[in-house]
Amino acid sequence: MSDKVRPRILKGMRDLPPEQMRARREMIDKIRIVYERYGFAPLETPTLEYVDALGKFLPEADQPDGGIFAFRDEDREWIALRYDLTAPLSRYFAMNKATLPRPYRRYQVGPVFRMEKPGPGRYREFYQFDFDSVGTSSMLADAEACMVMCDALEALGIEAGEYMVRVNNRKVLNGVLERVAGGDTLPPEVTHQVLRSIDKLDRLGIEGVAALLGPGRKDESGDVMKGVGLSVDQIKIVVGYLTAESATRMNVCDELESLIGESAIGREGIAELREIDTALTAGGFGEDRVVFDPTVVRGLAYYTGPVFEADLTVEIVDGSGRPRQFGSVFGGGRYDDLIARFTGEKVPATGASLGVDRLLAALIELGKIDAEPATAKVLVTRLDKNLTAEYQKIAGELRSAGINTELYVGKQGIGKQFKYASATGKTVCVVLGEDEMGKGEVSIKDLRLGDELSKEIGADRKKWLEEQPAQLSVPRLGIAESVREVLARYSSN
Amino acid sequence: MSDKVRPRILKGMRDLPPEQMRARREMIDKIRIVYERYGFAPLETPTLEYVDALGKFLPEADQPDGGIFAFRDEDREWIALRYDLTAPLSRYFAMNKATLPRPYRRYQVGPVFRMEKPGPGRYREFYQFDFDSVGTSSMLADAEACMVMCDALEALGIEAGEYMVRVNNRKVLNGVLERVAGGDTLPPEVTHQVLRSIDKLDRLGIEGVAALLGPGRKDESGDVMKGVGLSVDQIKIVVGYLTAESATRMNVCDELESLIGESAIGREGIAELREIDTALTAGGFGEDRVVFDPTVVRGLAYYTGPVFEADLTVEIVDGSGRPRQFGSVFGGGRYDDLIARFTGEKVPATGASLGVDRLLAALIELGKIDAEPATAKVLVTRLDKNLTAEYQKIAGELRSAGINTELYVGKQGIGKQFKYASATGKTVCVVLGEDEMGKGEVSIKDLRLGDELSKEIGADRKKWLEEQPAQLSVPRLGIAESVREVLARYSSN
Repeated sequence: MSDKVRPRILKGMRDLPPEQMRARREMIDKIRIVYERYGFAPLETPTLEYVDALGKFLPEADQPDGGIFAFRDEDREWIALRYDLTAPLSRYFAMNKATLPRPYRRYQVGPVFRMEKPGPGRYREFYQFDFDSVGTSSMLADAEACMVMCDALEALGIEAGEYMVRVNNRKVLNGVLERVAGGDTLPPEVTHQVLRSIDKLDRLGIEGVAALLGPGRKDESGDVMKGVGLSVDQIKIVVGYLTAESATRMNVCDELESLIGESAIGREGIAELREIDTALTAGGFGEDRVVFDPTVVRGLAYYTGPVFEADLTVEIVDGSGRPRQFGSVFGGGRYDDLIARFTGEKVPATGASLGVDRLLAALIELGKIDAEPATAKVLVTRLDKNLTAEYQKIAGELRSAGINTELYVGKQGIGKQFKYASATGKTVCVVLGEDEMGKGEVSIKDLRLGDELSKEIGADRKKWLEEQPAQLSVPRLGIAESVREVLARYSSN
Repeated sequence: MSDKVRPRILKGMRDLPPEQMRARREMIDKIRIVYERYGFAPLETPTLEYVDALGKFLPEADQPDGGIFAFRDEDREWIALRYDLTAPLSRYFAMNKATLPRPYRRYQVGPVFRMEKPGPGRYREFYQFDFDSVGTSSMLADAEACMVMCDALEALGIEAGEYMVRVNNRKVLNGVLERVAGGDTLPPEVTHQVLRSIDKLDRLGIEGVAALLGPGRKDESGDVMKGVGLSVDQIKIVVGYLTAESATRMNVCDELESLIGESAIGREGIAELREIDTALTAGGFGEDRVVFDPTVVRGLAYYTGPVFEADLTVEIVDGSGRPRQFGSVFGGGRYDDLIARFTGEKVPATGASLGVDRLLAALIELGKIDAEPATAKVLVTRLDKNLTAEYQKIAGELRSAGINTELYVGKQGIGKQFKYASATGKTVCVVLGEDEMGKGEVSIKDLRLGDELSKEIGADRKKWLEEQPAQLSVPRLGIAESVREVLARYSSN
C-alpha cells in the first residue's frame, strides 16, 4: 500500500494507558466523595462553547485568542474548546439564573484544552476537577473551599505537613498598590506588570522581583527583562509586603494592617482574611494546614478577593539526585465580576480547581496510589481446540464468582498464550487438556511464583520445567475457589 | 452594562444536571464492571485527532468532511474532534503495534462529536462506551462481544425478553449481492445503495424496501425517492434473504445457505455465523437473548464480517398514548481492514459501541435507575450569626460520620434557608438557636414529612405551624445518630 496514512497523535496530546486510567479514576472517586460530602453536586457542560461566552481570561492571553483552540462553526460563529471549567460555569449560571438556587454549588471534572507550547508534563488537553459556590459573598464559602482542598488531599493519603494551603486576598494586594501609587490607583497595565513580577517570586527570589519592579534584570541567558520602573520607595513597600511573615494567620493580618495604612480596599481585604481565619479555626483547620501568604497572586485576571492554592510540600529526589517539589495542585479564589459579563448584575462566586494530571503524577511518584496495568488477573488458555466449550464454561464460572477473567480469543498456540498472559499482566493461567478433563482436574499456573522460581533456579532450567512447582492440579469442581486462593497470595489482588 | 454578553449554549449541545450525571455515572460503573469482568482494560485517547487519522467512515459522510467538527491547527493541519472511539483506537493500535499484545483488548468511554442536524434526543456531543478486541480473527471474539452486550444490559436490570442481540454477517450480505449480480460483483455504489435501502426496513417495511430496490417510491410527503433499479428477479433474491426467519440460529444458517447458493464469500459468512452460534450456545446464551437476523446491516462502511446490535424490545407508552420502542443501544461488528489504512497489513478487529445517552434515557424512563438531584440530603442552617462556629462543628461532625452535609454559606435569613433546602433537594434541616444551645439540644426538621403533613392538614395550617410534628429536638451529643435515623425513613437515602 503506497497511500498508507501515518498514525500520529497531536502535538502536546497523549494516550492514557490502563494503569494511569485506573489510578486517575480512583483518585477522582476519592475526591468526588469529599466534594459531595460538602454538598457540591455534579454538572457537565459541553466541551465546546462560543468564544464570546468563554471570554479571555487566560494569563497567557495577551494576544487575541492566544492559548485556545478556536474555530468557526457552520454559521461562521467563533467556537472553541473550553480552556477551563469556570467560564462554562459562568455561562451556565447566567443562562439558568432564574431557576438555580443561591448559592448554586456544583463540581465538574473533565478535560480542558489550551494551545500552549507543550513541555514535559505540560499537555494541551488535561483534566481539571473544580468545585464552586455561586451567588454568595460570604467568606464562609471561601473558608470552606480551603477546607475542601485539605480534606481532598488527606483523602488521598497526603497528610498535614505534606501539603499547605496558602491564602491571600487580591484586595490586600490592591491596597498595597494604592500605597505604592500614593493613595491613587495605578494604571491597569502597571498593576498587571506588578502582579506578574510578584508571581515570579518562587523562581527569581525577592532580589529578582525587586529588580523587576525597578529598572529590570538580566536573566541567566543574558536576556534583559524590562522592569516596571517603580521608585526605590515604591519597591520598598512591595518588598515589605511580600516579606510579611508571621507565626499565625492573625499575626499576618496584623502585620499587613500596619503595611496597608488607610487604604479602604486593603482594609476590606484584611477583614475578609480575618473572617476566613475565624471559620478555619472553628472548623479545626490550623496553621499546620492553612496559612496566609502575601506572596500568593494566582495568575487569572478575574479574581477579585481571596485567592488560594494548595501546594504539595513533600520533597522527592528526582532522577539526577536533586530534591524537587511538586508545587501547587489546587488553585482558586473569588471572582465576583465574572458572571456580571452576562447578567449585568454582580453575582459573587468562589471556588477552586484541581490540576488532576499534576496531582496524579505526584501520587504515583509518592507511591500513594496503585498503578495496575490489567483488569483481569486470570487468563483461561485454550490448549485444545476441541475443548473450547469447556474453556468458555470455566471462564463463565470464574466471572460469575466475581473474578475478572479473560478467555484467550486469539489464534496462537499455548506457548504464545503464556507469553500473552505475562504481557497483559496476568497472575494466573488456567490450563486444561483431554487427560485432565478425563480426571476431572484443571491446572492452575501461578505466573508470579513461576517468574520468581525461574530466577532462583537459574541454570537448572530443565529440572524446573519437569517439576513445574508453580503449576498445580486442582479439582474441576470448585475451580473458582482454587483460583481465588492463588490470587490471594498477592495482596494487591 | 450595554455590552453584556448573551449566555448561549451551542446548537445541539446541552448541560447535564446532577440527577442525570449521577445516573450516568452509576450506569457507566456497572457496565465497566462487566467489561473488566471479561478482561478489557481502559484506554483514553485525546479528544482531538488529525483528520487523516480519523478517516471518513460516517454513514452521513458522503459529502467531504460532512458530519465532523474539523478545523486547522496552528501548523495549518486539519484536526477534528473525534466522531467515534473506533477511529482513535485504530490510530492508537497502529502507533503502538510493536508493543501491544495481540489480541489487544481495551474499553473506552467518553464524548464524541458530530456536526449533524440536532433533533429530540439527538445531540452533537454524546457519550459512547466501546470495547474491542484488536488482532484476532477468531469468531470467539465476536461471540464474546455479543455476550458482553447481554451481560452489560442485564447488569443494569434489563432482563432477557426486554432486549435482544441481533447478529448478521456482512459476508452473507455480500454473498446475496453476488447472486443478485449473477455471480459477478455489483459496482460499489450499487452495493452501497442496496445496503442503505435494506437499512430502511424498520421504517419502510418490506414493500417499501422492495420498491426502493426497484423503480423507487413516493414517501408520505409525496417526494419521490429514486430506486436502485434492480430487476424483479433480483429484488426477489434480496426480499427472500430479508424475510429468512427461523426458530433457531442454526435454522437461519441453513435457510441462508440455500439462498446463498455457491457464493464463496456468502458461505464463509455462514460458517462464521455457525461458529458464533456454537460459542454462544456453549456460553449459555440462547435464542432468548441472541438471534441471527438477516436484516441487520449497521450503517458504518468499515464492517467486514459479523455485525451485531442490541435492541431494547420492551415497549413503553409515550406521552400521546402510543406504544414506543427504544431501539438499538449497542452496535458493533468486525472491521478487519480499518487498521490496515495505517499499517498496510491486515489487523483483524471486532467490538461494539454503546450509545450511553440513549440507554440512559431508556433506563430513566423504565424506572431502572435512580435520578437523584442532590448529593447532600442535610442542610445545617445558620439561624444565629453568633453560633456560626457551632454550625460548622455540627456540619463537620455529620461529615465525619459519613453523612453528606451542606453548611448554608449564603447570607439570607432562616425562612429563605428552608426554601433553599427544598430547592436543593434536602431531606433534613438542622436548626439551632441560643435557647437550645443552652439546653444541649438541636432541632432536626424532616422536610419530606413536613411536606406530607402540610398537604394532609391543608387548611389547619396554624395548628400545624404551632405543633410542627415534623420537627424534633434531639440531644446535641449524638446528632449524627439522630440525623441518620431521619434519613433512614426514606429508602433512597
